[in-house]
Amino acid sequence: MTTSFPMNAGDDPYSYSKNSQLQKEVLDNAKEMVRDAIIRKLDIKILLSSSNTFRITELGCSIGPNTFSAMQHVVEALKEKYKNNIPEFQIFFNDHVTNDFNTLFRSLPIDRSYYAFGVSGSFHGRLFPSRSIHFAHCSTSIHWLSKTPKELLDEKSPSWNKGLIHYIGASNIEVMNAYVAQFEKDMEMFFNARAEEIVPGGMMLLISPQLSECLLKFFGSSLMALVNEGKLDESLVNSFNVPVYFPSIEDMTKVVEKNDCFSIERIELTHPTSKLVDEADAKTLMINLRAVLEGLFINHFGSKLAKEAFTRTILKSDEISAWMKIKYKKACQLFIALKRK
Amino acid sequence: MTTSFPMNAGDDPYSYSKNSQLQKEVLDNAKEMVRDAIIRKLDIKILLSSSNTFRITELGCSIGPNTFSAMQHVVEALKEKYKNNIPEFQIFFNDHVTNDFNTLFRSLPIDRSYYAFGVSGSFHGRLFPSRSIHFAHCSTSIHWLSKTPKELLDEKSPSWNKGLIHYIGASNIEVMNAYVAQFEKDMEMFFNARAEEIVPGGMMLLISPQLSECLLKFFGSSLMALVNEGKLDESLVNSFNVPVYFPSIEDMTKVVEKNDCFSIERIELTHPTSKLVDEADAKTLMINLRAVLEGLFINHFGSKLAKEAFTRTILKSDEISAWMKIKYKKACQLFIALKRK
Repeated sequence: MTTSFPMNAGDDPYSYSKNSQLQKEVLDNAKEMVRDAIIRKLDIKILLSSSNTFRITELGCSIGPNTFSAMQHVVEALKEKYKNNIPEFQIFFNDHVTNDFNTLFRSLPIDRSYYAFGVSGSFHGRLFPSRSIHFAHCSTSIHWLSKTPKELLDEKSPSWNKGLIHYIGASNIEVMNAYVAQFEKDMEMFFNARAEEIVPGGMMLLISPQLSECLLKFFGSSLMALVNEGKLDESLVNSFNVPVYFPSIEDMTKVVEKNDCFSIERIELTHPTSKLVDEADAKTLMINLRAVLEGLFINHFGSKLAKEAFTRTILKSDEISAWMKIKYKKACQLFIALKRK
Repeated sequence: MTTSFPMNAGDDPYSYSKNSQLQKEVLDNAKEMVRDAIIRKLDIKILLSSSNTFRITELGCSIGPNTFSAMQHVVEALKEKYKNNIPEFQIFFNDHVTNDFNTLFRSLPIDRSYYAFGVSGSFHGRLFPSRSIHFAHCSTSIHWLSKTPKELLDEKSPSWNKGLIHYIGASNIEVMNAYVAQFEKDMEMFFNARAEEIVPGGMMLLISPQLSECLLKFFGSSLMALVNEGKLDESLVNSFNVPVYFPSIEDMTKVVEKNDCFSIERIELTHPTSKLVDEADAKTLMINLRAVLEGLFINHFGSKLAKEAFTRTILKSDEISAWMKIKYKKACQLFIALKRK
């Protein structure tokens, strides 16, 4: 069964709509590559002469404002590309059915130059009719697995990830292997679906953070501190792993080649220009992650313990800041431009 | 400025999703005419040979379950029509941005044979790219005006509708004229937008109740009773008129002819087969109307007075039942099948 973990809804202080700085940075870093892919790689003839509608989807859109900024950027590049023969744009905002589409619709930019639609469902399955999408965009989303591999939580399995909530920090290689296997299964479904939906010559851009969300190791140690203080049963930590996997260039190349319907037009790791390394920035980032992960943690640990773990982690901002000064410079994000053969 | 009055959200006892019997009846009465219009009037060649996607919109969908049942019926008739060459179906569920799309998405039928999308916005304006819709369906919705004509609320105007909340029951003909003028303005925008969006040969079916919602006269008298008891200021009643107009065959013919982009394939008044005339049924209908109108009433009168007016009205179910026995037999609904020229 596929599970879904929506970002925090609405617009209160810990909502995703007010806490998406990290995702904004990922998008900003990719902006020039997005424009470049459209200007240099897109074949404008993918629009049929009989239709003047260019159909775009944003996969894993959440609730804004980043998704609107990303789509505005895509539409501007497309207008530049189509010059004197600008089509009508239709944008399909996709996310899990548990996403807060009401907030998404209510915050659509009034001056948008596209027709906006919502489509609910997992992007690991079919969302659109065959050959109906010209351009797919997916930022800070493909690292979410459809589920936590169950062997990670099984003490009889060689992949049991005792005392940890993620593969980062795990010394047992079987833990990593279980994550990779799930990622490959998910991406097989993802690419099979997109191969049906995207028109020949249509493009798909995937943008994925590589390291920044590894900050969740600090959430793991806050949970283990609660265990050591007797406030939380260790079995509850052992039965929980965060279902995110940050793919490498090799991982992505492998899944694209296996699917065999897309050509890789560009794939590279880039280094963010972020200067988010002081203590205040570390705090901002941790609150940002809280907006992303809170639903998932509350669902497993209950509201009280989850909130305590978050509060404790945010208090570690000096430690996190020191860690970030070392790691964040090496942090990078993956950009992939694909074309449907 | 366009105003919007969503049906009650969610699924609690007074929600629209649990109280839409009246709208269901309207749909059921029209089912055979819907099927007939598709089987006999639709030109299957409107689908381009280059695309195998048949695009449908449900305008003013609210939150189900009626909209799903209506769309299921449309898709089944289309499958019957397309026989051995069944296209993929894409359905766009439209309603105001204040509609509860989260509930709509979460209650989509799991076994649906179409791709489902949400589109927020007033159907008095553009919603879709040019020539992108093959079939539009709109039931129990076009009678909602985009706003209350302001002259109805202006004591200096000849159209002032003192002591009443609707044209039904008003002896001043100027009141009716103000409603008709607003309806014609709204329909001009509605038809201009649909003329752009619907492909040549594409169809639009409009279904509108004619009399049943006139039950709101009982709400009006409950409000005036509160005025007479000194609990409500009459000026608050005088500054409120319900923005719904029930068009006649002549009204609809006039707006379609003025627009001049659609041919009328069928237009007729039908009599519902309803046996909803006993006291329990009257109560059901009044609760149904409450789910539809509560937001509008609360917005103007505040929660306490609005709820008192609803409670009092529902208590009149014997009187309403007697009135319905006379009127409901004459009640009818308007069915219109149009084809884009």
